[in-house]
Amino acid sequence: MGANTFGTHFQVSTFGESHGPAMGALIEGCPAGVFFSWDLIQKKMDRRKPGKFPWMSSRKEPDEVKLLSGVFEDRTLGTPLALIVKNKDFKSEDYESIKYNPRPGHADDVWKKKFRHIDHRGGGRASGRETVGRVLGGAVAEMFLKPLYNQLNIEAFPTQIGPFVREEAVFDVKQKWFGKQTEEVEEFLIQKKKEGLSYGGSIKLIVDNPPSGLGQPVFKKLKSDMAAAFMSIGASYEVSLGDTLSSKEGENSKKDINEQEGSKLHNKKNSMVYGGIRGGISTGEKIIFHIKFKPPSSVLDIAKKGRHDPCIVPRAAVVVEAMAWLVIADHVLWSRLDRLS
Amino acid sequence: MGANTFGTHFQVSTFGESHGPAMGALIEGCPAGVFFSWDLIQKKMDRRKPGKFPWMSSRKEPDEVKLLSGVFEDRTLGTPLALIVKNKDFKSEDYESIKYNPRPGHADDVWKKKFRHIDHRGGGRASGRETVGRVLGGAVAEMFLKPLYNQLNIEAFPTQIGPFVREEAVFDVKQKWFGKQTEEVEEFLIQKKKEGLSYGGSIKLIVDNPPSGLGQPVFKKLKSDMAAAFMSIGASYEVSLGDTLSSKEGENSKKDINEQEGSKLHNKKNSMVYGGIRGGISTGEKIIFHIKFKPPSSVLDIAKKGRHDPCIVPRAAVVVEAMAWLVIADHVLWSRLDRLS
Amino acid sequence: MGANTFGTHFQVSTFGESHGPAMGALIEGCPAGVFFSWDLIQKKMDRRKPGKFPWMSSRKEPDEVKLLSGVFEDRTLGTPLALIVKNKDFKSEDYESIKYNPRPGHADDVWKKKFRHIDHRGGGRASGRETVGRVLGGAVAEMFLKPLYNQLNIEAFPTQIGPFVREEAVFDVKQKWFGKQTEEVEEFLIQKKKEGLSYGGSIKLIVDNPPSGLGQPVFKKLKSDMAAAFMSIGASYEVSLGDTLSSKEGENSKKDINEQEGSKLHNKKNSMVYGGIRGGISTGEKIIFHIKFKPPSSVLDIAKKGRHDPCIVPRAAVVVEAMAWLVIADHVLWSRLDRLS
Amino acid sequence: MGANTFGTHFQVSTFGESHGPAMGALIEGCPAGVFFSWDLIQKKMDRRKPGKFPWMSSRKEPDEVKLLSGVFEDRTLGTPLALIVKNKDFKSEDYESIKYNPRPGHADDVWKKKFRHIDHRGGGRASGRETVGRVLGGAVAEMFLKPLYNQLNIEAFPTQIGPFVREEAVFDVKQKWFGKQTEEVEEFLIQKKKEGLSYGGSIKLIVDNPPSGLGQPVFKKLKSDMAAAFMSIGASYEVSLGDTLSSKEGENSKKDINEQEGSKLHNKKNSMVYGGIRGGISTGEKIIFHIKFKPPSSVLDIAKKGRHDPCIVPRAAVVVEAMAWLVIADHVLWSRLDRLS
Repeated sequence: MGANTFGTHFQVSTFGESHGPAMGALIEGCPAGVFFSWDLIQKKMDRRKPGKFPWMSSRKEPDEVKLLSGVFEDRTLGTPLALIVKNKDFKSEDYESIKYNPRPGHADDVWKKKFRHIDHRGGGRASGRETVGRVLGGAVAEMFLKPLYNQLNIEAFPTQIGPFVREEAVFDVKQKWFGKQTEEVEEFLIQKKKEGLSYGGSIKLIVDNPPSGLGQPVFKKLKSDMAAAFMSIGASYEVSLGDTLSSKEGENSKKDINEQEGSKLHNKKNSMVYGGIRGGISTGEKIIFHIKFKPPSSVLDIAKKGRHDPCIVPRAAVVVEAMAWLVIADHVLWSRLDRLS
Repeated sequence: MGANTFGTHFQVSTFGESHGPAMGALIEGCPAGVFFSWDLIQKKMDRRKPGKFPWMSSRKEPDEVKLLSGVFEDRTLGTPLALIVKNKDFKSEDYESIKYNPRPGHADDVWKKKFRHIDHRGGGRASGRETVGRVLGGAVAEMFLKPLYNQLNIEAFPTQIGPFVREEAVFDVKQKWFGKQTEEVEEFLIQKKKEGLSYGGSIKLIVDNPPSGLGQPVFKKLKSDMAAAFMSIGASYEVSLGDTLSSKEGENSKKDINEQEGSKLHNKKNSMVYGGIRGGISTGEKIIFHIKFKPPSSVLDIAKKGRHDPCIVPRAAVVVEAMAWLVIADHVLWSRLDRLS
Repeated sequence: MGANTFGTHFQVSTFGESHGPAMGALIEGCPAGVFFSWDLIQKKMDRRKPGKFPWMSSRKEPDEVKLLSGVFEDRTLGTPLALIVKNKDFKSEDYESIKYNPRPGHADDVWKKKFRHIDHRGGGRASGRETVGRVLGGAVAEMFLKPLYNQLNIEAFPTQIGPFVREEAVFDVKQKWFGKQTEEVEEFLIQKKKEGLSYGGSIKLIVDNPPSGLGQPVFKKLKSDMAAAFMSIGASYEVSLGDTLSSKEGENSKKDINEQEGSKLHNKKNSMVYGGIRGGISTGEKIIFHIKFKPPSSVLDIAKKGRHDPCIVPRAAVVVEAMAWLVIADHVLWSRLDRLS
Repeated sequence: MGANTFGTHFQVSTFGESHGPAMGALIEGCPAGVFFSWDLIQKKMDRRKPGKFPWMSSRKEPDEVKLLSGVFEDRTLGTPLALIVKNKDFKSEDYESIKYNPRPGHADDVWKKKFRHIDHRGGGRASGRETVGRVLGGAVAEMFLKPLYNQLNIEAFPTQIGPFVREEAVFDVKQKWFGKQTEEVEEFLIQKKKEGLSYGGSIKLIVDNPPSGLGQPVFKKLKSDMAAAFMSIGASYEVSLGDTLSSKEGENSKKDINEQEGSKLHNKKNSMVYGGIRGGISTGEKIIFHIKFKPPSSVLDIAKKGRHDPCIVPRAAVVVEAMAWLVIADHVLWSRLDRLS
């Protein structure tokens, strides 16, 4: 299977270089009869769009999506869906100097060593713009799943941005993107961007009301595919299943286990939520992951004409969600093969 | 691709239920001409064998490995290697009561709901004994890689066991398995096993002198495949790339990036090692992962006749290493396809 | 995917060298709950066994099948089934001379050139004995399909052996293996084997009452997967879909097409049966294939101590059937993914 | 792996419905550094273009190819190449009547039964226009292979058109497409198209100077992958390896085998050329296949406003070549994994 294809049954193949003609996704394995929602596509694309906030990359990405195949009279045909977005707003000449001077911290030099011939402009395929294809694929996965599981919901939101840790006990993605602290964080990022500083952070993913029975032992466990999905995103460096306390010693007793409600285990020292996955298979309970991201290596005074974010986390949330939709869609199909009848 | 197969080019498929006739591995894609080392196989099997320590599961696993195919006159043929280990020492009757009472915290009930028909004895395929096939596969991967990269070395060792955090700054796997604290930890586990308590912990993996250029953008990045590999192991719940400090704010500046030596980034607040992977591709520098494991759900007074460990971490180290060897072998083959010539 | 694995969803991986310790099959993707029939396994193994007739290879293959995993209390678990057959009756020393003198017409030299290191004994993995794993896999596929489609039946039988063309208009596999001509053909083969001559021939495959809707456009059409399946068998060199007359000019008219009953097309010049597949998808009608085989390159006076058949066709029929069962099983699973619900 | 993806290492995924917005190919696994030739692309597209001859489908297909990704400064990047061709000249309203009356002999009804929701216009994805993606993929495969094997050449040409059998002993594709008989055949087809008749035929494929050692036992033999490739083309129904005489009895003797030169076997009754493949692996000698095609089911008076050919064979030759290039490219990459070093 190709390295630019994700999934076993519901598959998305992404393509496109940051400053090439277009980005896109080829979606294969989407069943026939799925209603294709342009609203959903647009909503997702808007969420990943840079330039929403003053501290974000100022690259304009109108990102008009074109559908080339796989849908007729608003329903999927069971054939591959090709979706593309033209690359419009970039100034490749800004990157000419980079051609001969790979940017520190970026992948330019490792790509060069591996493939010999690279597209240095804007990171080529290593650009964050590569995630356009993921978001398109995730949107189609959502279109497929929503009519089958109408209680299923997937949401990801930032819980840490540099020094800021989100305070709320219960997060609500519908409110401001970082809760009550939103304005404070935005001011901080505007200021720090000017200073040429970048920040890492953390995203929490919640899958509400997932179907049970998803995940295939022993190598395609749901937690394994989720981890692969999130660790394939550019700057991610840690994936953690469930909500755990840093002070936890991980001690279990008979009493703890007997008191366990679903995937939630109360024990002496703390309360752990294992995240709705047991034996690699979804239990039907809420699934939780935390994903951490490095600070971007592009900072203002290094590639000042290129457009970059001081923190990738706010825009990464929609990509994390897309990957989760793809994993769930893949395993919903796979689970159709579990039993004789 | 099947759910019991790991890898794209160098593939291991594992099979076997804990109390079925045998465990095994089918290794496909191993090139012809690799010297098959029985010593290496035995060394690895010994490391994962339970019963080494008084606090471990008392199940005896002589684990005599038989090779059924793929090798002639001590060298691989380029055909599949089938390796099996008979299951000998188990008392399935100990598990009869479980048949009607799935064990809390185990996967028995989710498997049952998913597949309807399960082998309840000893966890069936969800048993830790499933890792026999992974260790066999990893050993063959090591046989393949060692003659090509003689400086390449992979080591994993426990860094946390319940409340114990390993003290040494530099770990040496050749010394006692938990350094100077080994005896203290062993006494603790013996005592706690009697009390019916189990513990989680953490393992650190180091890949020394890896080949550079391993990893395939965008979905088969080395970090993504490594994460999938480690998260496919039974009780794992977190995978983290690199050494990072918990207090780190993840702030980057131009100065930080310019001072970067390889994957090591010194910045104002702390020192981060990104773990030898940039853009999803190995740089040739040391690769570091941390993998966390839950406390086992099997505790003495629940399935007292079954044999279980109060902490899975000491025995999991060799499995983590095996998965890492498999990922590296897979990507070494894959990198042969990178360029025109 | 490995080269020794067949199928996308219902997969069989075969292993074993002719004179190595064992032959076997690993079956992955068989749903849970399938009744495992030892009778069926034995019936199939008996049909492919050499030594049934005086003119066949005299190698004794008691071929006792052992099941290592995947079945509990006579039903499949949804985990991989490993089936093995030990290699017992062979005299490897008979092949010592071949080591330095590759046999003309065999694959010994091309394998040697490709892999450098080969098992020269009895053809190694290029031996006809490799088909043991296919027959085992096909038997499990049949166990899966029969309860779901009880009218489904697959039969293959020789229609040509060297100069003999089977006479009957309607073939009945339950009668003698070559109909009224059986004795005449057997005498011919006994005589010709002594003279060191070998013969090619043809096999007809009939899939009766197949499910409709099998086959996935555009590259996994049922005819494409069937062709790949049959052309992967050792000595096959031609695969043809449907019953066609050699004199046919292939002329269609409006009238022909309108008079078409199902896949049967009567036209001016002749009557063609397209074989129950249209657009690469099964129509539910009878599917017919013809497969042609080369004469074996092993003839008596070349490797006189090795055991060989003067014609591979009679024993190949059960292998052709096995491959057809595998293809149908694979596509039955695949068709579960066709539609939203 | 998806059903619209061909190949294991060098992969092409095709997409597009006949009357949808565009046709295309996503090529994954093409190594970095391959020179991208627009000339080659155009040459191939011209060869498959309908409307070249008066007896062909009159659909105009200017077929301007656009490259969306994977190439920078005329060389491939090792990232996926997306190539598209917009669908321009069609009149979908011509097909409105078909929506409710599936055309006899076409796949409309089997698609409808399988997927429930189909694009009835012009056959949708079952249209011959689907081969655009194959030709694009094959062209890129050729670009990859030509610099590595400059003697390698692949040519396919019609050898039978309805009642006409090509006379020449040696075919030359550079001359008229059906040799001396070209004019006679064209006149025949023009006349028969008016009469609403369609014809089948045969194509011969020659791979000259292939690399040796291509093909992976036991299921990915070169002959098996070639057969799958050719049988995945719309109207094909027979694939045959090598040149064989219909009267051949397939008799081998010691003398025959000893006199064998390469893959050419002279025996008593006839001369057989096995086609440069032994044991499923290329020997380096010329590889020959014959592929037979059914007469098109679209004839003039049935879908008179749709555009159809009275015989698909002339235009299929370039598609057969493309599939052969793809198989060879895939196996050239695969053979890089054969040996330890």
